[in-house]
Amino acid sequence: MQVYQAPLRDMRFVLHELFAQHDGFGAIAAHEEFTPDLLDAVLEEAAKMAHEVLLPLNAPGDEEGCHHENGVVRTPAGFKDAYKQFCEAGWASLANDAEWGGQGLPETINKLVEEMICGANVSFSLYPGLTHGATTAIESHASDDLKQRYLPKMTSGEWSGTMCLTESHCGTDLGLLRTKAVPQDDGSYKITGNKIFISAGEHDLAGNIVHLVLARIQGAPEGVKGISLFIVPKYLPKDDGSVGPSNGVLCTGIEHKMGLKASATCQMSFEDSVGWVVGEPNKGLAAMFTMMNTERVSVGIQGLGIGEASYQGAVAYAKDRIQGRALSGVKRPDLAADPIIVHPDVRRMLMTQRAYLEGCRAVGQWVSRALDVVRHGTDPVAKQRADDFVQLMTPVVKALFTDLGHEAAHLGVQTYGGHGYIREHGMEQYARDARIAMIYEGTNGIQGLDLVGRKLGAHAGRYLKSFFHPVSDFIEANKDAKEDKNNPWGKLVAGLEQAFGALQLSTATIAQKGMADPEEAAAAGTDYLRLLGLVAMAYMFARSAEIAGAKMMAGEDPDGFYKNKLTTVRFFYERILPQAAGLLMAIKAGKASMMDMAEDAF
Amino acid sequence: MQVYQAPLRDMRFVLHELFAQHDGFGAIAAHEEFTPDLLDAVLEEAAKMAHEVLLPLNAPGDEEGCHHENGVVRTPAGFKDAYKQFCEAGWASLANDAEWGGQGLPETINKLVEEMICGANVSFSLYPGLTHGATTAIESHASDDLKQRYLPKMTSGEWSGTMCLTESHCGTDLGLLRTKAVPQDDGSYKITGNKIFISAGEHDLAGNIVHLVLARIQGAPEGVKGISLFIVPKYLPKDDGSVGPSNGVLCTGIEHKMGLKASATCQMSFEDSVGWVVGEPNKGLAAMFTMMNTERVSVGIQGLGIGEASYQGAVAYAKDRIQGRALSGVKRPDLAADPIIVHPDVRRMLMTQRAYLEGCRAVGQWVSRALDVVRHGTDPVAKQRADDFVQLMTPVVKALFTDLGHEAAHLGVQTYGGHGYIREHGMEQYARDARIAMIYEGTNGIQGLDLVGRKLGAHAGRYLKSFFHPVSDFIEANKDAKEDKNNPWGKLVAGLEQAFGALQLSTATIAQKGMADPEEAAAAGTDYLRLLGLVAMAYMFARSAEIAGAKMMAGEDPDGFYKNKLTTVRFFYERILPQAAGLLMAIKAGKASMMDMAEDAF
Repeated sequence: MQVYQAPLRDMRFVLHELFAQHDGFGAIAAHEEFTPDLLDAVLEEAAKMAHEVLLPLNAPGDEEGCHHENGVVRTPAGFKDAYKQFCEAGWASLANDAEWGGQGLPETINKLVEEMICGANVSFSLYPGLTHGATTAIESHASDDLKQRYLPKMTSGEWSGTMCLTESHCGTDLGLLRTKAVPQDDGSYKITGNKIFISAGEHDLAGNIVHLVLARIQGAPEGVKGISLFIVPKYLPKDDGSVGPSNGVLCTGIEHKMGLKASATCQMSFEDSVGWVVGEPNKGLAAMFTMMNTERVSVGIQGLGIGEASYQGAVAYAKDRIQGRALSGVKRPDLAADPIIVHPDVRRMLMTQRAYLEGCRAVGQWVSRALDVVRHGTDPVAKQRADDFVQLMTPVVKALFTDLGHEAAHLGVQTYGGHGYIREHGMEQYARDARIAMIYEGTNGIQGLDLVGRKLGAHAGRYLKSFFHPVSDFIEANKDAKEDKNNPWGKLVAGLEQAFGALQLSTATIAQKGMADPEEAAAAGTDYLRLLGLVAMAYMFARSAEIAGAKMMAGEDPDGFYKNKLTTVRFFYERILPQAAGLLMAIKAGKASMMDMAEDAF
Repeated sequence: MQVYQAPLRDMRFVLHELFAQHDGFGAIAAHEEFTPDLLDAVLEEAAKMAHEVLLPLNAPGDEEGCHHENGVVRTPAGFKDAYKQFCEAGWASLANDAEWGGQGLPETINKLVEEMICGANVSFSLYPGLTHGATTAIESHASDDLKQRYLPKMTSGEWSGTMCLTESHCGTDLGLLRTKAVPQDDGSYKITGNKIFISAGEHDLAGNIVHLVLARIQGAPEGVKGISLFIVPKYLPKDDGSVGPSNGVLCTGIEHKMGLKASATCQMSFEDSVGWVVGEPNKGLAAMFTMMNTERVSVGIQGLGIGEASYQGAVAYAKDRIQGRALSGVKRPDLAADPIIVHPDVRRMLMTQRAYLEGCRAVGQWVSRALDVVRHGTDPVAKQRADDFVQLMTPVVKALFTDLGHEAAHLGVQTYGGHGYIREHGMEQYARDARIAMIYEGTNGIQGLDLVGRKLGAHAGRYLKSFFHPVSDFIEANKDAKEDKNNPWGKLVAGLEQAFGALQLSTATIAQKGMADPEEAAAAGTDYLRLLGLVAMAYMFARSAEIAGAKMMAGEDPDGFYKNKLTTVRFFYERILPQAAGLLMAIKAGKASMMDMAEDAF
């Protein structure tokens, strides 16, 4: 009963139109071979794959779940075949480096394809997704020998990857971790310890599983300064590339979760497992963050993908389900009642979903552009600005997209009424599946802390400039329109200016109070992240409206896409952006009302 | 792993202190026998029952679910015993009329006990809850003969009740319903049709199940004007009160739901089942709404109860789980890390839950006071005002409490991080269980429509006065404090006045635009309901602060309850109430941005 078709029209809009000017980051020589036609063809093929291969497994996968017995994990029926098809068609290695067998496509494309995969089957997405994160860390930090040994097999998907951070007593606070690494004479280590919540820790899809494990080398300092990153394969690879003997890595159980049931979340035990250090000893956290940051953006995209799937399900139902009559008069006299899409409150839910999704997709594309520049750009100034922007926006994409994606999934359930609460239509699965993304790879509260605690102040506020400058330039460039009260476009610019003003004031408040008392900054984290996210969406929508308006003026809107874009923009500005005012007030209020309560009064 | 203790201290506060003055409704003679000590004893006994009998079955009930085979439904292990104990101790008939064997306790107490039952085990609450709704409808509308035959057995809980409204093609729009009633010579009817989503439609707890069924009498008008309400028992009662033969009522299946798994949600088939009309033929909808309105307030209380359970779970974890160090310096040098309750963002989540719960509890008590006056008051003016207030606030309590309860349940999950997403701690169950309350007994969107479409305009806005007058009187009475900028109490009054001003402006906007175009009112429904709810909570908090402040000045705060109340009030005013500004802006924007999109553009 679940429906999902990749939203190709809007994807092409953000890819080719919204970011046609490359946002000041400059063109990327390495990507010049990828013509718009080629990219569109990739997107269309990906859409087909998502619809035909992954979507049919989504609801059955949730129903069946994963099974664990004696260390062996079986994924739901069909997953093995789908994974094989997926890898053979090259989807596993879309953005990987050609040197290791990847296709070297831009992140802009990769993130759109990720959105499709998550829209069709987010549980499935975890298997190749974790591998992609692992290869990123290996590429950036491992020795040439390790790269040669692992990257080709992992890029093809023949072997999969994981990230083993969490232990039962530590998640956010990795300084507490206890897994041990004992140096061996040959330069390798023996790893011993227990990890939990390991996505794709064990499964039946790949010939080998390459764990990236955080552990503490014997004698290393306590806390985060004594943590190293290791490659620990399930089977030790032989020199000819085939898999050798088992390596003491055992899945001791899988979690029973609210959702994401077709993704195996494993408890892993390592016992004298041979591992090789990735990067420098005791600098594992930095190496792991390479992986984590890539993953954080991808987790944001999960929220977007699931939200889109829920939106499409809700639209289909709202057009089909008849109930009551339109307040403006009967719309379908041929039926016993009108389809519920005629009712304003149903419209409110659908438009809210839509505004969230189109806004996030545009912001996501902006960040992906910057990721490409960081990796492949040649102009050092543009590269720096792109990196600043990625630093700033990574927590925003992660938390904003997953919060809004979860809310969108629930609006989908609500549109179905009672039929949304039962399993039959697959809507409640979206709500359950979307929930984890607000938690893993750093809870959304941690993202807020990262934003206000690390990103705002870094390099005297330089990261923030990568975002503030384009927004204020845009407002400045459209000043005249704003002055004209009869110009609807002017109203938009004024709305953006107001929200941006709230963001600037909030930033100043946090910078000032947070200097004297870091708890003041921390208390504002979640609200500030949301406010910055809303302004980023508003800016993307204003830019979109500019393009759409020009197209309409030129009479180039045969299918009404640009007209509809303007309606969505208006909805966002009128019905969602006004939250900025309340967020500013909450941020200005400070920490007292939350910190004054005595601990035992809770 | 779930913890829940009824929040008796706060319950006593709202019961004895906040509503000591009876809010202008006047004392109720019929309730004078219930001394504060007696009521406290009832609450304490209820708390014990919830904790000892119902809570231990909550997680296991979710795990096991209900089972259906050949028309027979088995509830999870332990439910049958618990139900027996529950009824024998008199909890099933707490607020029922003494004439039928009930205890005749005030609704104020009943709703607090309902909160406890829902906090401990919301699935269980449905079984006695539906019965209570059914007895309300029977008491108000049925003939004396039907009352004599059904009310004693239903009051004791020996027989249970249901409400059979929904059919697969109609939920909100009951005018479409097809279940038929054919008149018989003896004045009874033969009922034939299929119903879905019938809570407690079939189960193994009671000796008989009394269905209140909406059906259309042969030849009756189409639409809602041809609907009648019938009593249709599972077994036909004999004259001696024992159960006789089966009555053609069959459970054909149960739903597989997101949550609420220990509550049997049944598909019911009626085939030539004997039924008796309740009230007048073709006026079934009005009779059913007697039941529905009682149920709507109770559904709101479900949100509150589950939210409180999630809050308590989150508090326990936040004090126990150690992770990271306080930004203001190490708090627990004896441990490897500080408990996470030291972190501002964790505080934000806990305080948000707390403010929601204390605010809703106070508003719920206010409405319960009015319900008591409607039923037992003697002063016609007070009775009218109370009824006006109940009319106005029923949709608000239903939608506001369930929205905030659901959000609170998710904040509980979030506080647990990854441990909240797995079943082990029981936190994700709260989120799943809480979700349905936003849907059933009229979706929350329908509540918004009811509020703006029916309640605002009724009797030239008279309902609204029952709420606006006390609030504006309060602001007027505290005018002097407001003028004093150094008085924190004045800041509160100013905050209330501002939010109330936003509500008044919104009301005027809706009244004006909605007159010309009902879609304009409908488009504002959800936002307006939230705004009214926030102001109601703000008013309750201001009144609470007044009491708490006086107690502290008098040095009567040995356990810090009043100090903590003031901190919660401040949090609400600083961090939640500011949303009012954005809601006003959204409401003023009108319907265009949601209605302008062409249907096929979705």
